Amino acid sequence: MVEFLNCFGVKPGGKQEFFTVWLEVNTYMRAKPGYVGHTLYRSLSPDATYRYVNTAQWESAQACQEAHDQGFRELAGALAQQGVTSTPSPYELVHDGRQPTIRLAYC
Amino acid sequence: MVEFLNCFGVKPGGKQEFFTVWLEVNTYMRAKPGYVGHTLYRSLSPDATYRYVNTAQWESAQACQEAHDQGFRELAGALAQQGVTSTPSPYELVHDGRQPTIRLAYC
Repeated sequence: MVEFLNCFGVKPGGKQEFFTVWLEVNTYMRAKPGYVGHTLYRSLSPDATYRYVNTAQWESAQACQEAHDQGFRELAGALAQQGVTSTPSPYELVHDGRQPTIRLAYC
Repeated sequence: MVEFLNCFGVKPGGKQEFFTVWLEVNTYMRAKPGYVGHTLYRSLSPDATYRYVNTAQWESAQACQEAHDQGFRELAGALAQQGVTSTPSPYELVHDGRQPTIRLAYC
């Protein structure tokens, strides 16, 4: 399992515009081979460095890499046009401190 | 539920030193009222903007805020001494795309 994390810097007032494009990209990516799941977090503070943080789980690094194809780039290009910054990179989960009962309730 | 997210910039060669302090801070924080759970991700690419990304779940924003007390600051101060950068901020989960069967297996 690979975790693909991405922190998005979004200009003030651009949250809805970002989310619309993010949904389009997400719909495209979740149909790709090896896609497992995702979460999207939105900041509660206007001072946050990143307005949104996205995690995506892929079966393998190869599946993740192949999914970021030309179709993805065409859709995601709209985010760059909005002035959105991003920090896309693959990660591994190295410390899982979710409590069992909470994990079931939370998931 | 509040998600407290933090991206850490760690100098090359500083991963183990970071992780040692992070474990101390984590042990301190998980004993606090309102603590729910956490995950720690480590980058797989040397080019990643952030070497580690930490998520922590708290029952409320108030519990999260109160947990970041003087004891926390004394422990976390060691990270600043290492030259570690961070982006601490509260978030909310706005899109959960984890698949039910995977959620159980993954959690």
